[in-house]
Amino acid sequence: MRENRLKSMWGRGEAAVNGWLQIPSAWSAELMAHRGWDSLTIDMQHGLIGYETALLQLQAISTTEVVPLARVPWNEPGIIMKLLDAGAYGIICPMINSRAEAEAFVGACRYAPEGYRSVGPTRARVYAGDDYQTQANKTIITLAMIETAEALENIEAIVSVRGLDAVYIGPADLSLSLTGTVQVDYTDPDLLAVLDTILAVAQKHHVVAGIHTSSVEFALKMIEAGFQLVTVSSDSGLMRAAAEATVTKMKGTVKERDDASPY
Amino acid sequence: MRENRLKSMWGRGEAAVNGWLQIPSAWSAELMAHRGWDSLTIDMQHGLIGYETALLQLQAISTTEVVPLARVPWNEPGIIMKLLDAGAYGIICPMINSRAEAEAFVGACRYAPEGYRSVGPTRARVYAGDDYQTQANKTIITLAMIETAEALENIEAIVSVRGLDAVYIGPADLSLSLTGTVQVDYTDPDLLAVLDTILAVAQKHHVVAGIHTSSVEFALKMIEAGFQLVTVSSDSGLMRAAAEATVTKMKGTVKERDDASPY
Amino acid sequence: MRENRLKSMWGRGEAAVNGWLQIPSAWSAELMAHRGWDSLTIDMQHGLIGYETALLQLQAISTTEVVPLARVPWNEPGIIMKLLDAGAYGIICPMINSRAEAEAFVGACRYAPEGYRSVGPTRARVYAGDDYQTQANKTIITLAMIETAEALENIEAIVSVRGLDAVYIGPADLSLSLTGTVQVDYTDPDLLAVLDTILAVAQKHHVVAGIHTSSVEFALKMIEAGFQLVTVSSDSGLMRAAAEATVTKMKGTVKERDDASPY
Amino acid sequence: MRENRLKSMWGRGEAAVNGWLQIPSAWSAELMAHRGWDSLTIDMQHGLIGYETALLQLQAISTTEVVPLARVPWNEPGIIMKLLDAGAYGIICPMINSRAEAEAFVGACRYAPEGYRSVGPTRARVYAGDDYQTQANKTIITLAMIETAEALENIEAIVSVRGLDAVYIGPADLSLSLTGTVQVDYTDPDLLAVLDTILAVAQKHHVVAGIHTSSVEFALKMIEAGFQLVTVSSDSGLMRAAAEATVTKMKGTVKERDDASPY
Amino acid sequence: MRENRLKSMWGRGEAAVNGWLQIPSAWSAELMAHRGWDSLTIDMQHGLIGYETALLQLQAISTTEVVPLARVPWNEPGIIMKLLDAGAYGIICPMINSRAEAEAFVGACRYAPEGYRSVGPTRARVYAGDDYQTQANKTIITLAMIETAEALENIEAIVSVRGLDAVYIGPADLSLSLTGTVQVDYTDPDLLAVLDTILAVAQKHHVVAGIHTSSVEFALKMIEAGFQLVTVSSDSGLMRAAAEATVTKMKGTVKERDDASPY
Amino acid sequence: MRENRLKSMWGRGEAAVNGWLQIPSAWSAELMAHRGWDSLTIDMQHGLIGYETALLQLQAISTTEVVPLARVPWNEPGIIMKLLDAGAYGIICPMINSRAEAEAFVGACRYAPEGYRSVGPTRARVYAGDDYQTQANKTIITLAMIETAEALENIEAIVSVRGLDAVYIGPADLSLSLTGTVQVDYTDPDLLAVLDTILAVAQKHHVVAGIHTSSVEFALKMIEAGFQLVTVSSDSGLMRAAAEATVTKMKGTVKERDDASPY
Repeated sequence: MRENRLKSMWGRGEAAVNGWLQIPSAWSAELMAHRGWDSLTIDMQHGLIGYETALLQLQAISTTEVVPLARVPWNEPGIIMKLLDAGAYGIICPMINSRAEAEAFVGACRYAPEGYRSVGPTRARVYAGDDYQTQANKTIITLAMIETAEALENIEAIVSVRGLDAVYIGPADLSLSLTGTVQVDYTDPDLLAVLDTILAVAQKHHVVAGIHTSSVEFALKMIEAGFQLVTVSSDSGLMRAAAEATVTKMKGTVKERDDASPY
Repeated sequence: MRENRLKSMWGRGEAAVNGWLQIPSAWSAELMAHRGWDSLTIDMQHGLIGYETALLQLQAISTTEVVPLARVPWNEPGIIMKLLDAGAYGIICPMINSRAEAEAFVGACRYAPEGYRSVGPTRARVYAGDDYQTQANKTIITLAMIETAEALENIEAIVSVRGLDAVYIGPADLSLSLTGTVQVDYTDPDLLAVLDTILAVAQKHHVVAGIHTSSVEFALKMIEAGFQLVTVSSDSGLMRAAAEATVTKMKGTVKERDDASPY
Repeated sequence: MRENRLKSMWGRGEAAVNGWLQIPSAWSAELMAHRGWDSLTIDMQHGLIGYETALLQLQAISTTEVVPLARVPWNEPGIIMKLLDAGAYGIICPMINSRAEAEAFVGACRYAPEGYRSVGPTRARVYAGDDYQTQANKTIITLAMIETAEALENIEAIVSVRGLDAVYIGPADLSLSLTGTVQVDYTDPDLLAVLDTILAVAQKHHVVAGIHTSSVEFALKMIEAGFQLVTVSSDSGLMRAAAEATVTKMKGTVKERDDASPY
Repeated sequence: MRENRLKSMWGRGEAAVNGWLQIPSAWSAELMAHRGWDSLTIDMQHGLIGYETALLQLQAISTTEVVPLARVPWNEPGIIMKLLDAGAYGIICPMINSRAEAEAFVGACRYAPEGYRSVGPTRARVYAGDDYQTQANKTIITLAMIETAEALENIEAIVSVRGLDAVYIGPADLSLSLTGTVQVDYTDPDLLAVLDTILAVAQKHHVVAGIHTSSVEFALKMIEAGFQLVTVSSDSGLMRAAAEATVTKMKGTVKERDDASPY
Repeated sequence: MRENRLKSMWGRGEAAVNGWLQIPSAWSAELMAHRGWDSLTIDMQHGLIGYETALLQLQAISTTEVVPLARVPWNEPGIIMKLLDAGAYGIICPMINSRAEAEAFVGACRYAPEGYRSVGPTRARVYAGDDYQTQANKTIITLAMIETAEALENIEAIVSVRGLDAVYIGPADLSLSLTGTVQVDYTDPDLLAVLDTILAVAQKHHVVAGIHTSSVEFALKMIEAGFQLVTVSSDSGLMRAAAEATVTKMKGTVKERDDASPY
Repeated sequence: MRENRLKSMWGRGEAAVNGWLQIPSAWSAELMAHRGWDSLTIDMQHGLIGYETALLQLQAISTTEVVPLARVPWNEPGIIMKLLDAGAYGIICPMINSRAEAEAFVGACRYAPEGYRSVGPTRARVYAGDDYQTQANKTIITLAMIETAEALENIEAIVSVRGLDAVYIGPADLSLSLTGTVQVDYTDPDLLAVLDTILAVAQKHHVVAGIHTSSVEFALKMIEAGFQLVTVSSDSGLMRAAAEATVTKMKGTVKERDDASPY
C-alpha cells in the first residue's frame, strides 16, 4: 500500500504543513497540490464542496505525492466511508465532544474487527495498491476536532480512543465556546494555556496534535510548541488576500473588506 | 449584516409570498428570483436538488434581493450547516415531531451558546457582511415543519423551543398522517380546524405560521387567517401546468395527466 | 431504425407541435417531455445550454416517445455532428442565408456520399437501433432557419438544396432584418406576406415550413396557413409567465416585467 | 403505477440478474441499461456516485424497462427518501445489523401508516404514474444487507420486520466479520453454511434472498440454491477486466493488477 | 438597460482595473467579484473554463456591480453570441490580425443592421433590462486582441472598423511573434515602442487601448501611458503566488516553481 | 518538459497501444489509465465528451504516466488550443482531406513561428514543466485522420506538411467513402491495399501511421505491417461487450444486440 507520508513524518517527529481547499474546483486543487504542501485537506464542512467535487479533487491531488485529507461536514458514517473509498488518506471530523463520538468516528474509518467500515475501497485501491484492504487500518489517519468546552472536559477520554491518530484544534469554535467570542491565532493567555493542555494530553497518549491558524507566524510558533500538523489559510483565503492587495495597490484604496476566517 | 427581509416583514405583521424551487438549475432559480417573490425556497427534500446545485442556486438568487431559504432533506446537522454557510437565510426542516427534534434542529442553526453550529460562514459572510458571525443567531430564521399527528400532539412543546422562528405546515403528510389520505388546500372542516389549532398555538408563542398550498385562492385564505408565509406551487409545477395548458389548446386534447402535488 | 415520428406526421400532411427547451436541466427536459409535445427542441443557440447538458437532456427526452431535436449555436460541423451522434433526430440551424450555407449544413448531417458526416453514432445507435448508420440519411431531419433579408432573397436556392427537409422561420431576426424592429406573431401585412412567400416556395419544393411563435392563437393560425411545425413559447417562458401571474394575483401588483421573446 | 418487474419475477419464483453501477456517468448507465439486466443498482455506497449523478442515472435507466435500484451510503432517511422521490424502485441498505435498524430503514421507504416516508414523489410520479403515492408501499422494494456477525445473530428478528422484501448478502464484509479475512464467491464450507442459514430463514419468512457475486459460475450456483437476486461484477469491473485482457494480449504481459472486489 | 460602467469610465477618461478568471468555479468568481475590480474577464481561451461554467460565473459576478467580460477561445460566432446572450457585457477576441477578422468579430456582437448577431438575449435581458435588444449595440463592448506582427501591420485597418470599442494587447504572443521569445511587462525599448504605436493609432481612432500585465508596477505605468484597461495577474496566479510564498516561509525553501504567465 | 513517451517509442521504432475514452467520466478515465495502455485518447468527436469533462479526464490520466491524447470534434482552432492548454500531449484531428486543412490543423498546435497557437499553457505547464512554451513545438504530437477518398488522393500533400507527426486511419469513414459501406478490420484486398499505400507514403515522409481497429487480431496484424499506433475498442465498447457476455451466460440468451463501431 502506498505510504502515508504524513504518518511517516509524524513517526520521525516532524511537523507537516497542510494546505486547505474550499473552492469547488479540481483545477484549483491541482494547482494547490503543486505548491509544496505536505498534505491538502478538502474541506467539506465549511468549504463549498460536495461529494462529487471532492472526488474530482482527490483525483487532482493524486497527480502529485501530496497526502489527500478530507474534513467531513459532520460525524456521519455515510460520507466518511465514501471519502475513504474515494482515496482520502485521512479524515478530519468536526465537533468530537465525547468518547462515544470519537469511537463512532474512528470506527467508521476502520475495517472489522477494529471498526465498522464497509469493504469496497473502489478508488482507494487504485490509488493506494491492491493490498489496501489489509493495510488501511494502520495507514489511514483519523483526526478528531477539539473545539468546544465539552471536548476540552473530555479530552483525556477522547484521545485515549484506540485508533485515533490525532486531534485537530478548531480555534474559532473553541474560543467561542470558552469565551463567547471568536478568536484565532490566540494571544489570550488563558486560551494559549488551553492549547498547551490539549497538546500535553495528546502527547501523553501518543496522539498527534494539529491546529488551524491564520498566519505563518502563529503556525511556526505552534510547530515550535510541539504541534505536528498546522494549516495556514486556504486556497480562497490566499486568493482573496492577494486580490485585495493588488486592487488596493492599483486603486490606492480598498473598496471593500471581507476578512478571512481560519475556517 | 444584510437584513433578513422576511423577518422584517413578519415583524411588521405582513405575510410573505414564497416561491419554491425543485428544478436543479441555477438559471431557473435566477429566472424565478426576478418574478417578485418575497423569498425563494430551494427544496432539497422533494426537489431534485443536491448540495452542489443548491449552492449555485443560492448564488443565482443573490443577484436579487429575494430572501434565500432552503428545505433540507432531513433533520441532519451536516447539510443544515452547509446550507447556512452557503448563504441560506433560513432553513425549513421536515418532520419535526417532538421537542427534542426541534431543539436539535434549532441548535444546528445557532452559534454557541444558543446552539452548536460550527463557525465558518464561508459564503454567508460574503453575501451578508463581515459581522455575520455575531449577528447570524438573530437574523437567520428556523422553520420547523409540522406534518404528523405526533407533531400535532407535541405542538406546544415544539413551538416553545427557544430560537424557533416559525412552523411550516406540510398539508400532504399531515393529512395522510391524520386521515390516511393525502389532501391539500383542505376543505375538510376537521383538517381546517387543525390548521386553526396550529396557528393559534404558534401565535400564542410568538412564532410565525406558514403553509404550503396549491392555489392562489387557498393561499390568500390562509393569509387572511393569519399565516405569514405561504407557498403557491413551484417552478416545475408552474411550468408543467402552463405547458399542459398550451399543448391542450394546441391539440384540443390532453394527452396525459401528471397532477402536481404541493411538494 | 426507430421511426422519426415528425417525418411520419409530415408525410401524412399533419402539423407538429414543438416544445422548446432553454433551461439547462435534464429534469425540466423530462418534465416537458411528458406533456404531450410531438417534438422537443434543445435550444443551444439562445437557450442556456452547453453540449454536456444537451446530452443529458437527450437522454431525458428518450424516456418518452417525443422526437428530440436540437438547435445548434451556429452552422459549425463539430457541434452538429456531436448532437447527431448523441441521438438528436433533427437539427435546426440558425442563420442560413445562402445555398452554400445550406449545403454546408445539410452535408454535416448526412453520411457519404450525400454529405460529410463522420461515422460514429455512439448514442444514436443505442437510441435508434443497430441499422442507424444505413438509415440515418433518410430518417434524420434538417431544418434551416430563414431569418434575414438575404435568406429571403435566396429562398429558392436554399430550399432546393438536396437533403434539406424543412425551413424554420425565426420571426424576431427576420423582422429586425427586414424592418429594423423586432416583431413576433406578425400583424404587419408585409411581414405576413413574407411568411406566405416562404411557405409557398417551400411547398413548391416539397420542403416543410415551420415557425417560432409566441401564442397559441398565432401558432394555430400558422398551422391553418400550412406550416407543419410550430413552436409556442418555451420551458422558461411558460414558467416565467405562470410565476408572474401567480405573484401578481398574490400581491395585487406586478413587481417587475421581463417580456418573453420567441427566442 | 408502473409495475415493479422485479417483484413480479419474484412472485413467479424467478431469479433476477442485477447489474451494478459504480461509474458516475449517465451514459455508462444508459449503455448498461440496454444490455439485458433485469435490474440495475446505482451503488452510492462504494460506487463513486453522488446524488446529482444518481438522479441522471435514474433518468438514463428509464429509457428502458430495466428496474432501477439504488444502494444508499448508509441507513440515513434523507438520502433514502431522496432516491425514492427520484424514481428508484427499490433501496439496498448496507449494514443492517438489528431489528431496530431494519425498522428504521423500512420505515423510511413507506408512507404512513406503514412508515414515515414524506409525501412528494416528484420524479417518481412522472416515472411510475399518477397513482404512485397510493401504490408505492406495495410496489417499492426494500433490501437489507446482511454482512456482519451481528446481523447473522439477529437474522430472524431482521427478516421478520414487516415491509422488508429482501435480504442482500455482502460476502466481503460478512466474511471479514466472521473470519477476519475478505472472501467472495465462498468455497469455505462454514461460510457456505452461513449462506444456507440466511436463505433458509429468509424463505421461512417469505423474504427474498439476494447476493453479490464475482463470477457467473458462483452466481448461477446461488440461483440454483434459491437466491432470487444475484449481481455479477459491475460496469467498472467489467470494463477493467476487458481492458486488462486486451492490453495483455496486445503487450504479451500484464503491466499492473487491480483486482476487482465484489463491491 | 443597465449601464456598462466600463464604457462610462472610458467616457470619463478613466482607466479600469480588470480582474481575470481562469479557475472553473462560480465560487471563486463570486469571491473575486467582491474584491473591488472594475470588471472581471472570464477567460475561456487559456483559462480552464467551458461554456457551462462561464454561465455560472456570469451569474456569480451578477451578485455585484462588477462589469462581466469574457474572452472567447477563438473568433467563432457561436460562442461569442452564446456569451452575450448569457449576459457578458463585453467580449475580448484573441488573434485579430486583419480588418476582415475584426469585422467578423464585431459583426457577431451587433444586431442588424450593424452586425449579424441573432436576437434572443435570454439571460442578458434579465440581467440588463427589458430594453436590452434596442440598446445592446451601443452598450456592449468589443475588444480585439492585438498580438501578432500581422495585426501590428494592419493596426490602422483594424481599429477603424466601425463598432470596435477597444484593442487589448496580448504581450506574450506579440513578443513571440515579433522577437521569437515570450516576454511580458516589456523592458525592451523596441517592444515598448510597439505599445506606443498601438496606443497612438487606437487613440487617433477613438478606440480604447488595454493590456495584459504581470505586475502592479507595469500596470500602473501603462495606465500612465494612456491605457484604459489593465489586467494584473488572475485568480489562479494570485492564489499560486500566495500559496508558494506561504509554503516557502513555512518550509524555508521553495519546493517547486511554476511561473505564472500573463495568460 | 516532461517527455512525450509516445514520441520516444516511435523514435525507437516501437508501436504504441492506445486506449480510447468515450464515457464522460473522470473515474472511468482513471481506471483505464491504470490498465497499461501506452496512451489514452479522449474522443471528443464521437465520444460523449465535452470540454469540461475532457479537462477532468486529462487530470485523471495525469495520475499515471500514460500519454494523454485528445480527438477534437472538428478542425477548429478554439477547441484544439483549449485541449493543448489543458495538457493534451497530442491531438487527433478528424477529416483532414487536403494540404490546406492539414496546415490549418498543425498550425493550431504550434507556437510561432511554426504555427499560430496562442501562448498560455495554463495547465500544460503544470503537467509538463516550466519550459513548456519553448519545448512544446517539438514535444506535442499532431495526428491527421485520413478517412476519405479525397484525403487518399491528397495523401502525399498532407503527410509532407511540416510539423505533422502522424496520420491516423479511420477505417469506417474511409470505407464508406471508398466503397459506400462501412467496414472495419478490413478483409477486402482493395481496402487493405489502401492501408498499404497510406503507410508507405507516410513512412516515406517519416510520418508515423496509426489506425483504429476492432480486434486484437487485426491490431497486431497492423503493427506487424508497420503501423506504430493502434487502438483496440474503447472504454464503453469493452464494457458493453463484457456486460453482454455476462448477461448472455446468465440468461442463456442475448436479449439485444448493439454492435460496437470502431469509433
